[in-house]
Amino acid sequence: MTPNAAAFDAWIRGPFRDMNSELEALYFAQADRANVAGVGDAIKQQLLTEGRDHISVLLGEGNTDEGFDANFDLLGNVGFYMAACRRHELTEPSRETRSPLTEASALAMQLGASLGTVPRFASAHLETHNRAHNGVFKSFTSLEDEITFIAYNTRGAFGYIRAAEALLHLLPLGISHPVAADLLRQAKASLEEVHRYNAELFEVLDVERFFYCVRPYYKPHRVGLREYRGANAGDFAGINVIDLLLGLCRADDPYYSQILVDKFLFMRPDDQLVLRDCMRRQSLLDAFLAELDQQGAPWYQGNLRLFLEVCEAHGRTALQHHEQLVEKFIVQPADEGERADDAGLTASGPPLPVLLKALKTLCDLRAGAPRDDIPSRYRELATLRGLLAPEAS
Amino acid sequence: MTPNAAAFDAWIRGPFRDMNSELEALYFAQADRANVAGVGDAIKQQLLTEGRDHISVLLGEGNTDEGFDANFDLLGNVGFYMAACRRHELTEPSRETRSPLTEASALAMQLGASLGTVPRFASAHLETHNRAHNGVFKSFTSLEDEITFIAYNTRGAFGYIRAAEALLHLLPLGISHPVAADLLRQAKASLEEVHRYNAELFEVLDVERFFYCVRPYYKPHRVGLREYRGANAGDFAGINVIDLLLGLCRADDPYYSQILVDKFLFMRPDDQLVLRDCMRRQSLLDAFLAELDQQGAPWYQGNLRLFLEVCEAHGRTALQHHEQLVEKFIVQPADEGERADDAGLTASGPPLPVLLKALKTLCDLRAGAPRDDIPSRYRELATLRGLLAPEAS
Amino acid sequence: MTPNAAAFDAWIRGPFRDMNSELEALYFAQADRANVAGVGDAIKQQLLTEGRDHISVLLGEGNTDEGFDANFDLLGNVGFYMAACRRHELTEPSRETRSPLTEASALAMQLGASLGTVPRFASAHLETHNRAHNGVFKSFTSLEDEITFIAYNTRGAFGYIRAAEALLHLLPLGISHPVAADLLRQAKASLEEVHRYNAELFEVLDVERFFYCVRPYYKPHRVGLREYRGANAGDFAGINVIDLLLGLCRADDPYYSQILVDKFLFMRPDDQLVLRDCMRRQSLLDAFLAELDQQGAPWYQGNLRLFLEVCEAHGRTALQHHEQLVEKFIVQPADEGERADDAGLTASGPPLPVLLKALKTLCDLRAGAPRDDIPSRYRELATLRGLLAPEAS
Amino acid sequence: MTPNAAAFDAWIRGPFRDMNSELEALYFAQADRANVAGVGDAIKQQLLTEGRDHISVLLGEGNTDEGFDANFDLLGNVGFYMAACRRHELTEPSRETRSPLTEASALAMQLGASLGTVPRFASAHLETHNRAHNGVFKSFTSLEDEITFIAYNTRGAFGYIRAAEALLHLLPLGISHPVAADLLRQAKASLEEVHRYNAELFEVLDVERFFYCVRPYYKPHRVGLREYRGANAGDFAGINVIDLLLGLCRADDPYYSQILVDKFLFMRPDDQLVLRDCMRRQSLLDAFLAELDQQGAPWYQGNLRLFLEVCEAHGRTALQHHEQLVEKFIVQPADEGERADDAGLTASGPPLPVLLKALKTLCDLRAGAPRDDIPSRYRELATLRGLLAPEAS
Ligand code: HEM
Ligand code: HEM
Repeated sequence: MTPNAAAFDAWIRGPFRDMNSELEALYFAQADRANVAGVGDAIKQQLLTEGRDHISVLLGEGNTDEGFDANFDLLGNVGFYMAACRRHELTEPSRETRSPLTEASALAMQLGASLGTVPRFASAHLETHNRAHNGVFKSFTSLEDEITFIAYNTRGAFGYIRAAEALLHLLPLGISHPVAADLLRQAKASLEEVHRYNAELFEVLDVERFFYCVRPYYKPHRVGLREYRGANAGDFAGINVIDLLLGLCRADDPYYSQILVDKFLFMRPDDQLVLRDCMRRQSLLDAFLAELDQQGAPWYQGNLRLFLEVCEAHGRTALQHHEQLVEKFIVQPADEGERADDAGLTASGPPLPVLLKALKTLCDLRAGAPRDDIPSRYRELATLRGLLAPEAS
Repeated sequence: MTPNAAAFDAWIRGPFRDMNSELEALYFAQADRANVAGVGDAIKQQLLTEGRDHISVLLGEGNTDEGFDANFDLLGNVGFYMAACRRHELTEPSRETRSPLTEASALAMQLGASLGTVPRFASAHLETHNRAHNGVFKSFTSLEDEITFIAYNTRGAFGYIRAAEALLHLLPLGISHPVAADLLRQAKASLEEVHRYNAELFEVLDVERFFYCVRPYYKPHRVGLREYRGANAGDFAGINVIDLLLGLCRADDPYYSQILVDKFLFMRPDDQLVLRDCMRRQSLLDAFLAELDQQGAPWYQGNLRLFLEVCEAHGRTALQHHEQLVEKFIVQPADEGERADDAGLTASGPPLPVLLKALKTLCDLRAGAPRDDIPSRYRELATLRGLLAPEAS
Repeated sequence: MTPNAAAFDAWIRGPFRDMNSELEALYFAQADRANVAGVGDAIKQQLLTEGRDHISVLLGEGNTDEGFDANFDLLGNVGFYMAACRRHELTEPSRETRSPLTEASALAMQLGASLGTVPRFASAHLETHNRAHNGVFKSFTSLEDEITFIAYNTRGAFGYIRAAEALLHLLPLGISHPVAADLLRQAKASLEEVHRYNAELFEVLDVERFFYCVRPYYKPHRVGLREYRGANAGDFAGINVIDLLLGLCRADDPYYSQILVDKFLFMRPDDQLVLRDCMRRQSLLDAFLAELDQQGAPWYQGNLRLFLEVCEAHGRTALQHHEQLVEKFIVQPADEGERADDAGLTASGPPLPVLLKALKTLCDLRAGAPRDDIPSRYRELATLRGLLAPEAS
Repeated sequence: MTPNAAAFDAWIRGPFRDMNSELEALYFAQADRANVAGVGDAIKQQLLTEGRDHISVLLGEGNTDEGFDANFDLLGNVGFYMAACRRHELTEPSRETRSPLTEASALAMQLGASLGTVPRFASAHLETHNRAHNGVFKSFTSLEDEITFIAYNTRGAFGYIRAAEALLHLLPLGISHPVAADLLRQAKASLEEVHRYNAELFEVLDVERFFYCVRPYYKPHRVGLREYRGANAGDFAGINVIDLLLGLCRADDPYYSQILVDKFLFMRPDDQLVLRDCMRRQSLLDAFLAELDQQGAPWYQGNLRLFLEVCEAHGRTALQHHEQLVEKFIVQPADEGERADDAGLTASGPPLPVLLKALKTLCDLRAGAPRDDIPSRYRELATLRGLLAPEAS
């Protein structure tokens, strides 16, 4: 890290965070907690100016050649700044045709282009690649609920990643390998950990705080000419690796491939490669179907049972995300605040009902729900379930 | 290539091309050559249906795992089909919210996502990676002018690529290396070849044919939900490598980095990597400035002279592109046809005057034009030119 | 897989395996179980000839362009054949200056060079990338003890790999991140699984069978002009990733970097990259030392305790490998058979006492043993242990 | 570059070079110019000690994480030092079982392993990646003949690389593409440049100086336990890319794949990838044979003629290398000095007659010489030549 980059990082971890925290306190104290206009304007200007000053210096340094990690980290910091400006409505994509944050856009575009990612902060900056200093990782505010939210997202992400790693290791062995069972058990256990973490998050997170003080930092905004959807907890390859390798979602389904197309550049390049590689693999579900004639073999019975348990664990966690987390922390407060139709409520941009429908589809695919309007694999799952000999009791 | 992929390829090279050619003949025979509506509807439907049939079969084949090259080629073929549908107004991005070509979109998105490129045909499919069979490469029509246009674009692209390769080889040697002169000479000679090819193209290409029968296949269109700008001859890394390594354009200039951001996914992944790597390098211009104290050394005088000649060659070719090719083949016929304000006239989408202004900026950067509203490096170039001792005559 | 490659694979999984099994039965029935000369010569010739026939056909196919996975698999099969020829003393590196298996060498060298690995079978072919058909993975013989050995090696390898993945995920978070604790716990649990698997292997594996009928397939042999050391269970990056990231071994220690240099090409290229990347990272041990001033912080106390537990788990497993597995299955039978000084007893080639000394060094580094003749980190570990506050009881 | 690395680089470019130059002057002034023993011992010791001091400091810096380029450069500098020690017989591989240069070995192995190359200097350090400072690139001595030798090697290498690039660009187009002719012409012109450079080198290089004062720095030596053959001018992918893509050499020929196997780690990783990719491609020669039925087509006639000219240019340059450069600068002085049987005369280690035979084979493959003991393609070339219609005169 150059001294200038280090100074900017210290600003993000200190004054920037304090200003955001102060502004949140002011907003939250209002009758209309959603209002931002006309509140704390001096602080907003200070945030805007101090950030720009840091960024101008960095831009002036010229082609810093500090390696991928340092540049990715710097992109995160520029992105934090741009996201905060958008949250405080210093910028607003629908009223502008290009981001008024010219220097920040310039630096973000240079970095994003050279890294191979979107030129904005992505979830990796908050979660899997958010370095802590003395026990404290980066966040927009010092609100306990934001910190909780990030920590649990991180745990959830790693849980999914571990499950994905187990399934990736299984690929070259094939479904009949004696060690496949160990790997399926790993995958299942890791998905159950995600479920447990999510359940804890469901309990500890404060709805109001999350809805009014955390979520707004994840809105879409412009960088240069283009608008980029917000980050969400899911912008890592692991969850899609699981979808694809289990066979619950398919890369030739236009609904699902649209998700992938829109998601790729929000992931780190190494993650992009992992996901790309998965897109060409045979799924476990298809592998079990292709070897139906082995259904009586002990390996088939044993590994099929485990495979179906992994699918169930994945479906269960998807349902939990949709019916508990999204419901409690987004749908209900939006309803109460009568804000369901607000633009900019969600990370990806579309109005809430549209997003919810899309999320429901994804959830139903993962759960293998009996729907025929989407390529849910419930029939094939039922076929496979039917092959299981009753377990010795 | 699977048999299905081969059959589709044969269709693209045969019947598809014939249908496009027939349609062009019909359009061109009209008083208003720009009109498409209501002409050749039976052919259009046949093209639509036959293409969809091929694509449905390919989609049904499932995760074809045929390696990068085969998949990239297949994406090109799907892309040709989608671009032709758009040209014949079977689809039109502004009247739709998603591409009505559902199967083609599904296949294109699956392929694009797994390859790491936009899910549409890009210029590599037409130029540097357009395999010929028995002397004939792929094209939309069998019109001689299209074939000429593609062949000359290909030559131009390779000329730029050779110049870029020479500059890339120079990087690790430094500007004072005895062999640097050879490489600068190579770069210059290659840029002069581009100029020569462009001059030939200027002569031989028919304006009307190009304007009415070739260009329209390069329009923006949707794939799935998103609209993608059209391909253009410049979607390869080489030209930007030259811009950046010479130092005429800079990655920290938001105007230029926006170009790069918008262009990256239109390039092949290997090309993306080359360009990314260049973004962190010191340019030759900056290297000469950094070693000003060596200005009297013979190596400095010799290599600086060559460097300035390379810059001139690059600027001259850029001017030629702008003032001759763009002017003759786009601006004038658009004026004559009173179509300058048409949406969809250009590959990238914006109205012609806006596009022209942007192209002029780029051209002025490359030519080091004396402008202060853009980061043209004309002052630094003048400084360096001033250092040259008069050549012995 | 081309039909020829599939036929060869079927031969390896069938007749080849049967011939090896028969030969082992003959050898094992002798008074001197180590003798190979003059036993089963007809079978040996058949194995030699049939294998060569398959390989000649494959070589004649020309540049098969089947993708990395298929080529890596084919290299494994050629390697199985060459290793069996060496085991049956159809080839013997010390009496030849180039492998007499000309066609096999040619194919292996072509494949190895194009893959970026040694041109022989490596442990990935037996373990992490050994695809099972109908519940049966590839092995030289159908002896139960070989199958047990391979399965447990695979389990051990995946255990190490999981631990390595957890530590790799920890890197970007830093030692003070709240989620670091989860990852350290994962690492520890995975190492404990390796210990458990090794203990089972210790119990179930038959010493004589392993020593006389399994181990000999792992000897060094020539491919073309060069001799390559044998495969061993450890030729995957995971274990060295753990060594390096924990900080117990160091890349600037010539003893350890020699191990890495000699090992790299025995790993798959993706694994090589992972290990390479680790070589430039700060180890956890060094990170804890660098933040000594935070020793009182709860995160320091908590994560340090976990870190030390991971180190202990790693050391314990290393000791188990050395004092139990190597001792019981190699040292003792070698002593009994008075074969300790035999050349070719071990995979890497050196005489047993030399190898044992080297393995002991490695084991002592991992265990942080109090030795000053090697860069064991026992002092630093003691320092850190001394910082731990007594645990609340 | 860290300050320590910069100091070492300055030492290599200054004092180290001066000491080598002084020693060469002393050796060369003797009756037996080949003698090294007992000459300039104080200088030798100084070189040994000063180098070790620099390296110890660098080793102590720990895991320097300076990026690939900086580390590759540092490896080159360590390698220069080790090669000079070997040249001055401070080390001698046949009298040692491990390099006595412990610190240098440690640093070289750490760097080589982390870079993915041999742990010694390779030709890229001297040629394509030898950065000049103020007009002077790195060399062992300041002898004009060494500088000439390196500069011409560099020119030759770039000539081959340009030819290889042209052929690589041709691959996706196929032999019948209208632009293929341009690329074949490029390849031919670049090979002719190599020929011209070689001819100049032949004239200007002094035999005695080269034989006694330059060549000895390229001898095999140990790093850690292993001995590595010397660098030679050909350790870049380009020349093999040409061999393979033209089809004059084949990856399934064990003689040739042995060359590739032995060479891979002497190339930079990016170069390794290029060459690997070529190993799976159809050669141009095979492509022309596969399309024999098109022999009457104008494209076939035109491109075949050009292809055969490229082959001739490649053969001619290979003959020049063998019959002029090797003959004049190695064979003759070795004969005169009666040193032909000396071990260590050549870069790769084997005695000169053995090496010459191997070089002759390679040369004959490239020239398509009429030999049946090697897979020379002279018959196929003759077939193709026979297809050419007499050129219009
Ligand atoms: C308060 C807790 C959470 C809420 C309210 C929530 C809400 C949402 C919403 C609204 C989206 C859609 C974003 C958009 O496209 O606009 C989303 C996406 C996603 N979330 Fe969460 N989320 C929560 C926690 C988590 C956690 C802990 C994980 C675990 C890693 C997670 C994983 C994902 C994933 C993977 C996606 C991408 C879509 C998908 O693949 O399912 N979320 N979340
Ligand atoms: C019968 C059981 C085993 C025996 C007798 C045994 C013996 C050996 C021997 C003799 C070596 C040195 C090879 C050489 O260089 O010649 C070795 C290396 C190695 N073995 Fe084992 N092994 C056994 C099981 C395992 C298992 C289950 C694992 C777990 C994955 C394992 C991991 C390793 C590793 C990582 C190395 C490389 C050196 C190192 O990094 O420690 N071994 N083993």
